[in-house]
Amino acid sequence: MTSSLSIALVGSGNVAWHLGHAFEQAGHRIVSVYSRSLIKAEFLAESLLQAHPTHQLDFSLVKADVFILALKDDAVEEVLQRAVFPVNSLVVHTSGSLPITIFTNQSKIRGGVFYPVQTFSKEVAINLKQTPIGVEASNSADLSLLKNLAESISEQVIELPTEARQIIHLAAVFACNFTNHLLGISQEILEKYQIDFSVLQPLITETLQKAFTHSPFQVQTGPAVRFDQNILIQHQQLLQHYPNYLAIYNTLTESIQQKAQELAALNQLYTQE
Amino acid sequence: MTSSLSIALVGSGNVAWHLGHAFEQAGHRIVSVYSRSLIKAEFLAESLLQAHPTHQLDFSLVKADVFILALKDDAVEEVLQRAVFPVNSLVVHTSGSLPITIFTNQSKIRGGVFYPVQTFSKEVAINLKQTPIGVEASNSADLSLLKNLAESISEQVIELPTEARQIIHLAAVFACNFTNHLLGISQEILEKYQIDFSVLQPLITETLQKAFTHSPFQVQTGPAVRFDQNILIQHQQLLQHYPNYLAIYNTLTESIQQKAQELAALNQLYTQE
Repeated sequence: MTSSLSIALVGSGNVAWHLGHAFEQAGHRIVSVYSRSLIKAEFLAESLLQAHPTHQLDFSLVKADVFILALKDDAVEEVLQRAVFPVNSLVVHTSGSLPITIFTNQSKIRGGVFYPVQTFSKEVAINLKQTPIGVEASNSADLSLLKNLAESISEQVIELPTEARQIIHLAAVFACNFTNHLLGISQEILEKYQIDFSVLQPLITETLQKAFTHSPFQVQTGPAVRFDQNILIQHQQLLQHYPNYLAIYNTLTESIQQKAQELAALNQLYTQE
Repeated sequence: MTSSLSIALVGSGNVAWHLGHAFEQAGHRIVSVYSRSLIKAEFLAESLLQAHPTHQLDFSLVKADVFILALKDDAVEEVLQRAVFPVNSLVVHTSGSLPITIFTNQSKIRGGVFYPVQTFSKEVAINLKQTPIGVEASNSADLSLLKNLAESISEQVIELPTEARQIIHLAAVFACNFTNHLLGISQEILEKYQIDFSVLQPLITETLQKAFTHSPFQVQTGPAVRFDQNILIQHQQLLQHYPNYLAIYNTLTESIQQKAQELAALNQLYTQE
Protein backbone atom coordinates (compact mmCIF):
# COMPACT_ATOMS: atom_id res chain seq x y z
CA MET A 1 0.00 0.00 0.00
CA THR A 2 1.57 3.28 -1.18
CA SER A 3 0.87 6.63 0.31
CA SER A 4 -0.12 9.36 -2.10
CA LEU A 5 2.75 11.62 -3.14
CA SER A 6 2.94 15.13 -4.58
CA ILE A 7 5.01 15.13 -7.75
CA ALA A 8 6.46 17.92 -9.89
CA LEU A 9 7.24 17.06 -13.48
CA VAL A 10 10.20 18.93 -14.95
CA GLY A 11 9.73 18.28 -18.65
CA SER A 12 6.63 17.80 -20.81
CA GLY A 13 7.79 15.29 -23.43
CA ASN A 14 6.85 11.66 -23.92
CA VAL A 15 8.35 10.38 -20.66
CA ALA A 16 6.68 13.14 -18.61
CA TRP A 17 3.40 12.51 -20.39
CA HIS A 18 3.30 8.76 -19.72
CA LEU A 19 4.64 8.97 -16.16
CA GLY A 20 2.33 11.85 -15.24
CA HIS A 21 -0.80 9.99 -16.25
CA ALA A 22 0.35 6.72 -14.69
CA PHE A 23 1.13 8.48 -11.38
CA GLU A 24 -2.26 10.13 -11.35
CA GLN A 25 -4.01 6.83 -12.01
CA ALA A 26 -2.05 5.34 -9.10
CA GLY A 27 -3.46 8.00 -6.79
CA HIS A 28 -0.60 10.50 -6.72
CA ARG A 29 -0.96 14.22 -7.32
CA ILE A 30 0.92 16.05 -10.10
CA VAL A 31 1.31 19.54 -8.68
CA SER A 32 3.40 21.18 -11.37
CA VAL A 33 4.52 20.73 -14.99
CA TYR A 34 7.54 22.62 -16.31
CA SER A 35 8.50 23.09 -19.95
CA ARG A 36 10.71 25.68 -21.66
CA SER A 37 7.61 26.26 -23.76
CA LEU A 38 4.63 27.42 -21.68
CA ILE A 39 2.23 26.07 -24.31
CA LYS A 40 3.67 22.60 -23.95
CA ALA A 41 3.56 22.79 -20.16
CA GLU A 42 -0.08 23.89 -20.36
CA PHE A 43 -0.94 21.14 -22.78
CA LEU A 44 0.26 18.41 -20.44
CA ALA A 45 -0.96 20.17 -17.28
CA GLU A 46 -4.47 20.52 -18.69
CA SER A 47 -4.66 16.78 -19.30
CA LEU A 48 -3.91 16.23 -15.59
CA LEU A 49 -6.23 16.94 -12.64
CA GLN A 50 -4.54 19.73 -10.69
CA ALA A 51 -1.15 20.46 -12.19
CA HIS A 52 0.15 24.00 -12.47
CA PRO A 53 1.97 24.76 -15.77
CA THR A 54 5.14 26.83 -15.74
CA HIS A 55 8.10 27.77 -17.90
CA GLN A 56 10.08 29.21 -14.99
CA LEU A 57 12.89 27.24 -13.40
CA ASP A 58 12.24 28.75 -9.97
CA PHE A 59 10.50 25.94 -8.09
CA SER A 60 11.20 27.42 -4.64
CA LEU A 61 7.49 27.66 -3.82
CA VAL A 62 6.51 24.26 -5.27
CA LYS A 63 5.60 21.73 -2.58
CA ALA A 64 6.48 18.33 -3.97
CA ASP A 65 7.75 15.09 -2.41
CA VAL A 66 9.76 14.50 -5.56
CA PHE A 67 10.81 16.53 -8.62
CA ILE A 68 11.15 14.33 -11.69
CA LEU A 69 13.48 15.58 -14.43
CA ALA A 70 11.98 13.95 -17.52
CA LEU A 71 14.41 15.62 -19.92
CA LYS A 72 16.98 14.74 -22.54
CA ASP A 73 20.40 13.97 -21.07
CA ASP A 74 22.04 17.22 -22.09
CA ALA A 75 19.12 19.27 -20.77
CA VAL A 76 19.36 17.64 -17.33
CA GLU A 77 22.70 19.23 -16.46
CA GLU A 78 21.63 22.59 -17.81
CA VAL A 79 18.40 22.57 -15.81
CA LEU A 80 20.25 21.48 -12.66
CA GLN A 81 22.54 24.48 -12.97
CA ARG A 82 19.75 26.99 -13.50
CA ALA A 83 16.83 25.66 -11.46
CA VAL A 84 16.02 26.67 -7.89
CA PHE A 85 14.48 23.90 -5.79
CA PRO A 86 13.18 24.17 -2.22
CA VAL A 87 16.07 23.34 0.13
CA ASN A 88 16.58 19.60 0.66
CA SER A 89 14.16 18.53 -2.10
CA LEU A 90 14.36 15.08 -3.66
CA VAL A 91 15.20 15.53 -7.37
CA VAL A 92 15.53 12.53 -9.69
CA HIS A 93 16.39 12.12 -13.35
CA THR A 94 15.00 9.46 -15.70
CA SER A 95 18.09 8.81 -17.81
CA GLY A 96 19.72 5.48 -18.59
CA SER A 97 23.22 6.85 -18.71
CA LEU A 98 23.65 9.88 -16.44
CA PRO A 99 25.36 8.88 -13.17
CA ILE A 100 23.78 9.70 -9.84
CA THR A 101 26.91 11.77 -9.15
CA ILE A 102 25.58 14.60 -11.33
CA PHE A 103 23.69 15.63 -8.20
CA THR A 104 26.81 15.68 -6.02
CA ASN A 105 27.56 19.35 -6.64
CA GLN A 106 23.99 20.25 -5.77
CA SER A 107 24.44 20.27 -2.01
CA LYS A 108 20.99 21.72 -1.38
CA ILE A 109 19.03 18.81 -2.88
CA ARG A 110 18.89 15.01 -2.51
CA GLY A 111 19.55 13.31 -5.85
CA GLY A 112 18.13 10.08 -7.26
CA VAL A 113 17.25 8.15 -10.39
CA PHE A 114 13.92 6.87 -11.67
CA TYR A 115 14.67 5.06 -14.96
CA PRO A 116 11.87 3.37 -16.92
CA VAL A 117 13.49 0.86 -19.31
CA GLN A 118 11.23 1.73 -22.23
CA THR A 119 10.89 3.96 -25.27
CA PHE A 120 7.96 6.36 -25.23
CA SER A 121 5.97 7.99 -28.03
CA LYS A 122 3.08 10.27 -27.33
CA GLU A 123 0.71 8.41 -29.65
CA VAL A 124 1.49 4.88 -28.42
CA ALA A 125 -0.01 3.55 -25.21
CA ILE A 126 2.58 1.78 -23.07
CA ASN A 127 1.92 -0.97 -20.58
CA LEU A 128 3.84 0.58 -17.70
CA LYS A 129 2.88 -2.29 -15.38
CA GLN A 130 5.26 -4.53 -17.38
CA THR A 131 7.92 -1.84 -17.87
CA PRO A 132 10.97 -2.37 -15.64
CA ILE A 133 11.80 0.71 -13.56
CA GLY A 134 15.29 1.04 -12.08
CA VAL A 135 15.67 3.24 -9.01
CA GLU A 136 18.74 4.63 -7.26
CA ALA A 137 19.10 7.07 -4.36
CA SER A 138 21.73 8.46 -2.04
CA ASN A 139 20.09 7.26 1.17
CA SER A 140 17.79 4.43 2.20
CA ALA A 141 14.75 6.60 2.97
CA ASP A 142 14.80 8.08 -0.54
CA LEU A 143 15.41 4.66 -2.04
CA SER A 144 12.35 3.31 -0.35
CA LEU A 145 10.25 6.33 -1.37
CA LEU A 146 11.32 5.84 -5.01
CA LYS A 147 10.69 2.10 -4.83
CA ASN A 148 7.20 2.66 -3.49
CA LEU A 149 6.52 5.25 -6.16
CA ALA A 150 7.80 2.90 -8.90
CA GLU A 151 5.85 -0.07 -7.52
CA SER A 152 2.66 1.98 -7.63
CA ILE A 153 2.89 2.02 -11.43
CA SER A 154 5.02 -1.04 -12.33
CA GLU A 155 5.37 -4.67 -11.31
CA GLN A 156 9.04 -4.76 -12.37
CA VAL A 157 10.92 -2.49 -10.01
CA ILE A 158 14.65 -3.01 -9.52
CA GLU A 159 17.34 -1.29 -7.51
CA LEU A 160 19.84 -0.26 -10.14
CA PRO A 161 23.20 1.31 -9.25
CA THR A 162 24.63 3.68 -11.85
CA GLU A 163 27.04 1.13 -13.38
CA ALA A 164 24.36 -1.54 -13.92
CA ARG A 165 22.00 1.08 -15.33
CA GLN A 166 24.63 2.22 -17.82
CA ILE A 167 25.19 -1.41 -18.85
CA ILE A 168 21.47 -1.86 -19.46
CA HIS A 169 21.52 1.31 -21.51
CA LEU A 170 24.46 0.04 -23.59
CA ALA A 171 22.70 -3.31 -24.10
CA ALA A 172 19.56 -1.44 -25.14
CA VAL A 173 21.52 0.47 -27.76
CA PHE A 174 22.43 -2.86 -29.38
CA ALA A 175 19.04 -4.51 -28.91
CA CYS A 176 16.87 -1.51 -29.81
CA ASN A 177 18.61 1.49 -31.40
CA PHE A 178 20.83 -0.61 -33.67
CA THR A 179 18.09 -3.12 -34.36
CA ASN A 180 15.84 -0.25 -35.43
CA HIS A 181 18.48 1.01 -37.85
CA LEU A 182 18.81 -2.49 -39.36
CA LEU A 183 15.05 -2.61 -39.83
CA GLY A 184 15.30 0.76 -41.58
CA ILE A 185 17.99 -0.58 -43.93
CA SER A 186 15.88 -3.64 -44.60
CA GLN A 187 12.89 -1.47 -45.46
CA GLU A 188 14.99 0.80 -47.70
CA ILE A 189 16.39 -2.17 -49.65
CA LEU A 190 12.91 -3.63 -50.15
CA GLU A 191 11.29 -0.34 -51.16
CA LYS A 192 13.92 0.24 -53.82
CA TYR A 193 12.39 -2.87 -55.45
CA GLN A 194 8.80 -1.85 -54.65
CA ILE A 195 8.45 -4.64 -52.10
CA ASP A 196 6.47 -3.82 -48.99
CA PHE A 197 8.34 -4.15 -45.67
CA SER A 198 5.37 -6.06 -44.24
CA VAL A 199 6.55 -9.15 -46.18
CA LEU A 200 9.16 -9.60 -43.42
CA GLN A 201 6.87 -9.01 -40.44
CA PRO A 202 6.11 -12.69 -39.65
CA LEU A 203 9.79 -13.59 -39.96
CA ILE A 204 10.90 -10.69 -37.75
CA THR A 205 8.26 -11.44 -35.12
CA GLU A 206 9.32 -15.09 -35.03
CA THR A 207 13.02 -14.16 -34.80
CA LEU A 208 12.26 -11.99 -31.77
CA GLN A 209 10.16 -14.62 -30.06
CA LYS A 210 12.91 -17.18 -30.55
CA ALA A 211 15.52 -14.83 -29.11
CA PHE A 212 13.62 -14.72 -25.82
CA THR A 213 12.86 -18.44 -25.54
CA HIS A 214 16.33 -19.58 -26.66
CA SER A 215 19.75 -17.99 -26.42
CA PRO A 216 20.10 -15.79 -29.56
CA PHE A 217 23.65 -16.97 -30.30
CA GLN A 218 22.47 -20.60 -30.16
CA VAL A 219 19.68 -20.10 -32.72
CA GLN A 220 21.64 -17.90 -35.16
CA THR A 221 20.67 -18.62 -38.78
CA GLY A 222 21.63 -17.15 -42.15
CA PRO A 223 24.52 -17.26 -44.62
CA ALA A 224 27.15 -15.87 -42.21
CA VAL A 225 26.80 -18.60 -39.59
CA ARG A 226 26.66 -21.24 -42.37
CA PHE A 227 29.85 -19.76 -43.86
CA ASP A 228 27.96 -19.78 -47.17
CA GLN A 229 30.51 -18.01 -49.34
CA ASN A 230 28.31 -17.94 -52.49
CA ILE A 231 25.50 -16.08 -50.78
CA LEU A 232 27.86 -13.75 -48.93
CA ILE A 233 29.41 -12.70 -52.25
CA GLN A 234 25.98 -12.31 -53.86
CA HIS A 235 24.90 -10.02 -51.00
CA GLN A 236 28.13 -8.01 -51.07
CA GLN A 237 27.56 -7.38 -54.78
CA LEU A 238 23.96 -6.31 -54.21
CA LEU A 239 25.24 -3.81 -51.61
CA GLN A 240 28.01 -2.30 -53.72
CA HIS A 241 26.23 1.06 -54.03
CA TYR A 242 25.52 1.24 -50.28
CA PRO A 243 28.98 1.64 -48.69
CA ASN A 244 27.63 2.08 -45.14
CA TYR A 245 25.35 -0.94 -45.39
CA LEU A 246 28.15 -3.00 -46.90
CA ALA A 247 30.39 -2.05 -43.96
CA ILE A 248 27.63 -3.11 -41.56
CA TYR A 249 27.14 -6.34 -43.52
CA ASN A 250 30.82 -7.22 -43.34
CA THR A 251 31.32 -6.21 -39.70
CA LEU A 252 28.30 -8.19 -38.52
CA THR A 253 29.16 -11.19 -40.72
CA GLU A 254 32.65 -11.31 -39.23
CA SER A 255 31.32 -11.08 -35.67
CA ILE A 256 28.72 -13.81 -36.30
CA GLN A 257 31.37 -16.11 -37.77
CA GLN A 258 33.79 -15.53 -34.92
CA LYS A 259 31.07 -16.19 -32.36
CA ALA A 260 30.14 -19.40 -34.20
CA GLN A 261 33.74 -20.55 -34.08
CA GLU A 262 33.94 -19.76 -30.35
CA LEU A 263 30.77 -21.77 -29.70
CA ALA A 264 32.05 -24.68 -31.81
CA ALA A 265 35.33 -24.69 -29.88
CA LEU A 266 33.41 -24.66 -26.59
CA ASN A 267 31.21 -27.55 -27.73
CA GLN A 268 34.29 -29.54 -28.66
CA LEU A 269 35.76 -28.92 -25.22
CA TYR A 270 32.59 -30.23 -23.57
CA THR A 271 32.54 -33.28 -25.86
CA GLN A 272 36.14 -34.14 -25.06
CA GLU A 273 35.54 -34.12 -21.30
CA MET B 1 -10.98 -24.30 -54.27
CA THR B 2 -7.78 -26.32 -54.70
CA SER B 3 -7.58 -29.81 -56.05
CA SER B 4 -5.71 -32.32 -53.92
CA LEU B 5 -2.09 -32.87 -54.98
CA SER B 6 0.42 -35.65 -54.42
CA ILE B 7 3.60 -34.26 -52.96
CA ALA B 8 7.06 -35.75 -52.41
CA LEU B 9 9.19 -34.11 -49.74
CA VAL B 10 12.92 -34.21 -50.43
CA GLY B 11 14.34 -33.33 -47.04
CA SER B 12 13.11 -33.99 -43.50
CA GLY B 13 14.24 -30.90 -41.60
CA ASN B 14 12.19 -28.07 -40.13
CA VAL B 15 10.88 -26.72 -43.44
CA ALA B 16 9.81 -30.21 -44.64
CA TRP B 17 8.21 -30.87 -41.28
CA HIS B 18 6.09 -27.72 -41.22
CA LEU B 19 5.17 -27.79 -44.92
CA GLY B 20 4.34 -31.52 -44.84
CA HIS B 21 1.86 -31.15 -42.02
CA ALA B 22 0.32 -27.99 -43.45
CA PHE B 23 -0.14 -29.65 -46.86
CA GLU B 24 -1.80 -32.66 -45.27
CA GLN B 25 -4.15 -30.44 -43.27
CA ALA B 26 -5.05 -28.66 -46.51
CA GLY B 27 -6.10 -31.99 -48.03
CA HIS B 28 -3.00 -32.89 -50.04
CA ARG B 29 -1.23 -36.23 -49.88
CA ILE B 30 2.44 -36.57 -48.90
CA VAL B 31 3.51 -39.68 -50.79
CA SER B 32 7.19 -39.78 -49.98
CA VAL B 33 9.77 -38.36 -47.56
CA TYR B 34 13.47 -38.47 -48.40
CA SER B 35 16.36 -37.92 -46.00
CA ARG B 36 20.01 -38.96 -46.18
CA SER B 37 19.26 -40.59 -42.84
CA LEU B 38 16.54 -43.26 -43.10
CA ILE B 39 15.69 -42.79 -39.42
CA LYS B 40 14.94 -39.11 -39.98
CA ALA B 41 12.87 -39.89 -43.08
CA GLU B 42 10.90 -42.47 -41.08
CA PHE B 43 10.39 -40.08 -38.19
CA LEU B 44 8.70 -37.48 -40.38
CA ALA B 45 6.91 -40.05 -42.59
CA GLU B 46 5.37 -41.73 -39.54
CA SER B 47 3.89 -38.44 -38.41
CA LEU B 48 2.13 -38.13 -41.77
CA LEU B 49 -0.79 -40.25 -43.02
CA GLN B 50 0.59 -42.22 -45.95
CA ALA B 51 4.13 -41.09 -46.70
CA HIS B 52 6.79 -43.61 -47.70
CA PRO B 53 10.22 -42.95 -46.12
CA THR B 54 13.38 -43.36 -48.18
CA HIS B 55 17.07 -42.51 -48.15
CA GLN B 56 17.54 -43.34 -51.84
CA LEU B 57 17.73 -40.52 -54.40
CA ASP B 58 16.07 -42.65 -57.10
CA PHE B 59 12.55 -41.22 -57.27
CA SER B 60 11.79 -42.70 -60.72
CA LEU B 61 8.86 -44.71 -59.37
CA VAL B 62 7.44 -41.96 -57.16
CA LYS B 63 4.16 -40.55 -58.50
CA ALA B 64 4.01 -36.95 -57.34
CA ASP B 65 2.58 -33.75 -58.82
CA VAL B 66 5.46 -31.87 -57.25
CA PHE B 67 8.78 -32.73 -55.62
CA ILE B 68 9.73 -30.20 -52.93
CA LEU B 69 13.43 -29.84 -52.16
CA ALA B 70 13.33 -28.68 -48.54
CA LEU B 71 17.11 -28.68 -48.16
CA LYS B 72 19.97 -26.39 -47.25
CA ASP B 73 21.22 -24.36 -50.21
CA ASP B 74 24.41 -26.33 -50.77
CA ALA B 75 22.54 -29.64 -50.57
CA VAL B 76 20.09 -28.60 -53.30
CA GLU B 77 22.67 -28.59 -56.08
CA GLU B 78 24.19 -31.85 -54.89
CA VAL B 79 20.80 -33.58 -54.77
CA LEU B 80 19.89 -32.22 -58.20
CA GLN B 81 23.04 -33.78 -59.65
CA ARG B 82 22.51 -37.18 -58.07
CA ALA B 83 18.73 -37.62 -57.92
CA VAL B 84 16.65 -39.40 -60.57
CA PHE B 85 13.16 -37.95 -61.04
CA PRO B 86 10.39 -39.30 -63.31
CA VAL B 87 10.76 -37.60 -66.70
CA ASN B 88 9.13 -34.16 -66.86
CA SER B 89 8.46 -33.91 -63.09
CA LEU B 90 7.90 -30.56 -61.42
CA VAL B 91 10.74 -30.05 -58.92
CA VAL B 92 10.89 -26.92 -56.73
CA HIS B 93 13.31 -25.65 -54.13
CA THR B 94 12.43 -23.61 -51.02
CA SER B 95 15.48 -21.33 -50.88
CA GLY B 96 15.54 -17.55 -50.62
CA SER B 97 18.68 -17.15 -52.66
CA LEU B 98 19.12 -19.94 -55.22
CA PRO B 99 18.07 -18.74 -58.69
CA ILE B 100 15.48 -20.66 -60.69
CA THR B 101 18.24 -21.18 -63.28
CA ILE B 102 19.79 -23.94 -61.17
CA PHE B 103 17.21 -26.18 -62.88
CA THR B 104 18.22 -25.11 -66.39
CA ASN B 105 20.77 -27.89 -66.83
CA GLN B 106 18.17 -30.43 -65.72
CA SER B 107 16.43 -30.77 -69.06
CA LYS B 108 14.32 -33.70 -67.91
CA ILE B 109 12.46 -31.82 -65.19
CA ARG B 110 10.43 -28.59 -64.83
CA GLY B 111 11.96 -26.33 -62.20
CA GLY B 112 10.28 -23.93 -59.78
CA VAL B 113 10.51 -22.18 -56.43
CA PHE B 114 8.27 -22.38 -53.36
CA TYR B 115 9.79 -19.98 -50.80
CA PRO B 116 8.14 -19.48 -47.40
CA VAL B 117 9.45 -16.19 -45.95
CA GLN B 118 9.84 -17.56 -42.44
CA THR B 119 12.29 -19.24 -40.07
CA PHE B 120 11.30 -22.71 -38.87
CA SER B 121 12.18 -24.62 -35.72
CA LYS B 122 10.78 -28.06 -35.03
CA GLU B 123 9.57 -27.16 -31.55
CA VAL B 124 7.85 -23.90 -32.46
CA ALA B 125 4.41 -23.85 -34.09
CA ILE B 126 4.26 -21.42 -37.01
CA ASN B 127 1.17 -19.65 -38.29
CA LEU B 128 1.66 -20.55 -41.95
CA LYS B 129 -1.60 -18.81 -42.91
CA GLN B 130 0.16 -15.48 -42.23
CA THR B 131 3.51 -16.54 -43.69
CA PRO B 132 4.19 -15.01 -47.12
CA ILE B 133 5.04 -17.65 -49.72
CA GLY B 134 6.84 -16.58 -52.90
CA VAL B 135 6.41 -18.79 -55.98
CA GLU B 136 8.24 -18.87 -59.30
CA ALA B 137 8.01 -21.28 -62.24
CA SER B 138 9.22 -21.63 -65.81
CA ASN B 139 5.74 -21.77 -67.36
CA SER B 140 2.29 -20.48 -66.51
CA ALA B 141 0.71 -23.88 -65.82
CA ASP B 142 3.35 -24.65 -63.19
CA LEU B 143 3.05 -21.15 -61.78
CA SER B 144 -0.66 -21.61 -61.29
CA LEU B 145 -0.20 -25.06 -59.76
CA LEU B 146 2.34 -23.62 -57.27
CA LYS B 147 0.11 -20.63 -56.53
CA ASN B 148 -2.83 -22.90 -55.80
CA LEU B 149 -0.68 -25.11 -53.61
CA ALA B 150 0.66 -22.08 -51.71
CA GLU B 151 -2.80 -20.55 -51.34
CA SER B 152 -4.07 -23.78 -49.81
CA ILE B 153 -1.79 -23.16 -46.79
CA SER B 154 -1.19 -19.39 -46.77
CA GLU B 155 -3.15 -16.17 -47.26
CA GLN B 156 -0.03 -14.27 -48.37
CA VAL B 157 1.01 -15.74 -51.70
CA ILE B 158 3.14 -13.67 -54.06
CA GLU B 159 4.73 -14.27 -57.46
CA LEU B 160 8.38 -13.65 -56.81
CA PRO B 161 10.97 -13.63 -59.60
CA THR B 162 14.48 -14.69 -58.59
CA GLU B 163 15.87 -11.14 -58.27
CA ALA B 164 13.07 -9.93 -55.98
CA ARG B 165 13.37 -13.09 -53.91
CA GLN B 166 17.09 -12.53 -53.46
CA ILE B 167 16.43 -8.94 -52.38
CA ILE B 168 13.93 -10.15 -49.79
CA HIS B 169 16.52 -12.61 -48.58
CA LEU B 170 19.15 -9.87 -48.28
CA ALA B 171 16.67 -7.63 -46.42
CA ALA B 172 15.88 -10.56 -44.11
CA VAL B 173 19.57 -10.97 -43.30
CA PHE B 174 19.58 -7.39 -41.98
CA ALA B 175 16.19 -7.55 -40.27
CA CYS B 176 16.52 -11.04 -38.76
CA ASN B 177 19.98 -12.64 -38.85
CA PHE B 178 21.83 -9.46 -37.90
CA THR B 179 19.14 -8.40 -35.44
CA ASN B 180 19.44 -11.78 -33.76
CA HIS B 181 23.20 -11.34 -33.40
CA LEU B 182 22.67 -7.90 -31.83
CA LEU B 183 20.23 -9.43 -29.36
CA GLY B 184 22.90 -12.02 -28.55
CA ILE B 185 25.47 -9.29 -27.90
CA SER B 186 22.95 -7.45 -25.73
CA GLN B 187 22.31 -10.61 -23.71
CA GLU B 188 26.05 -11.31 -23.34
CA ILE B 189 26.75 -7.79 -22.07
CA LEU B 190 23.91 -8.01 -19.54
CA GLU B 191 24.82 -11.48 -18.30
CA LYS B 192 28.38 -10.42 -17.64
CA TYR B 193 26.81 -8.14 -15.01
CA GLN B 194 24.29 -10.78 -13.82
CA ILE B 195 21.40 -8.84 -15.32
CA ASP B 196 18.66 -10.92 -16.93
CA PHE B 197 18.02 -10.26 -20.63
CA SER B 198 14.28 -10.14 -19.92
CA VAL B 199 14.76 -6.60 -18.52
CA LEU B 200 14.88 -5.43 -22.16
CA GLN B 201 11.91 -7.43 -23.45
CA PRO B 202 9.27 -4.64 -23.16
CA LEU B 203 11.62 -2.14 -24.79
CA ILE B 204 12.51 -4.51 -27.65
CA THR B 205 8.88 -5.44 -28.24
CA GLU B 206 7.92 -1.76 -28.37
CA THR B 207 10.81 -0.93 -30.74
CA LEU B 208 9.61 -3.64 -33.12
CA GLN B 209 6.01 -2.52 -33.02
CA LYS B 210 7.04 1.04 -33.73
CA ALA B 211 9.15 -0.05 -36.70
CA PHE B 212 6.06 -1.49 -38.38
CA THR B 213 3.71 1.39 -37.64
CA HIS B 214 6.24 4.13 -38.44
CA SER B 215 9.22 4.27 -40.75
CA PRO B 216 12.17 2.96 -38.67
CA PHE B 217 14.54 5.71 -39.83
CA GLN B 218 11.99 8.34 -38.77
CA VAL B 219 11.67 7.01 -35.21
CA GLN B 220 15.38 6.34 -34.60
CA THR B 221 16.35 7.02 -30.98
CA GLY B 222 19.53 6.66 -28.94
CA PRO B 223 22.86 8.43 -28.46
CA ALA B 224 24.02 8.04 -32.10
CA VAL B 225 21.11 9.92 -33.66
CA ARG B 226 21.35 12.58 -30.91
CA PHE B 227 25.08 12.94 -31.66
CA ASP B 228 25.55 12.59 -27.89
CA GLN B 229 29.34 12.51 -27.75
CA ASN B 230 29.54 11.92 -23.97
CA ILE B 231 27.47 8.75 -24.10
CA LEU B 232 29.18 7.49 -27.27
CA ILE B 233 32.56 7.75 -25.54
CA GLN B 234 31.21 6.11 -22.38
CA HIS B 235 29.93 3.18 -24.48
CA GLN B 236 33.14 2.87 -26.47
CA GLN B 237 35.05 2.63 -23.19
CA LEU B 238 32.70 -0.04 -21.84
CA LEU B 239 33.30 -2.05 -25.05
CA GLN B 240 37.07 -1.79 -25.05
CA HIS B 241 37.53 -5.51 -24.32
CA TYR B 242 35.05 -6.56 -27.05
CA PRO B 243 36.80 -5.56 -30.31
CA ASN B 244 34.09 -7.09 -32.55
CA TYR B 245 31.27 -5.43 -30.66
CA LEU B 246 33.13 -2.12 -30.65
CA ALA B 247 33.52 -2.39 -34.44
CA ILE B 248 29.79 -3.04 -34.76
CA TYR B 249 29.05 -0.13 -32.40
CA ASN B 250 31.15 2.28 -34.44
CA THR B 251 29.96 1.08 -37.86
CA LEU B 252 26.30 1.29 -36.88
CA THR B 253 26.75 4.64 -35.11
CA GLU B 254 28.33 6.10 -38.23
CA SER B 255 25.55 4.78 -40.48
CA ILE B 256 22.83 6.10 -38.13
CA GLN B 257 24.46 9.53 -38.04
CA GLN B 258 24.88 9.70 -41.80
CA LYS B 259 21.24 8.68 -42.32
CA ALA B 260 20.16 11.35 -39.82
CA GLN B 261 22.09 13.98 -41.74
CA GLU B 262 20.55 12.82 -45.03
CA LEU B 263 17.05 13.06 -43.54
CA ALA B 264 17.79 16.51 -42.10
CA ALA B 265 19.03 17.73 -45.49
CA LEU B 266 15.90 16.33 -47.16
CA ASN B 267 13.65 18.04 -44.62
CA GLN B 268 15.42 21.32 -45.24
CA LEU B 269 14.90 20.91 -49.00
CA TYR B 270 11.18 20.40 -48.47
CA THR B 271 11.01 23.40 -46.14
CA GLN B 272 12.73 25.65 -48.67
CA GLU B 273 10.31 24.78 -51.46
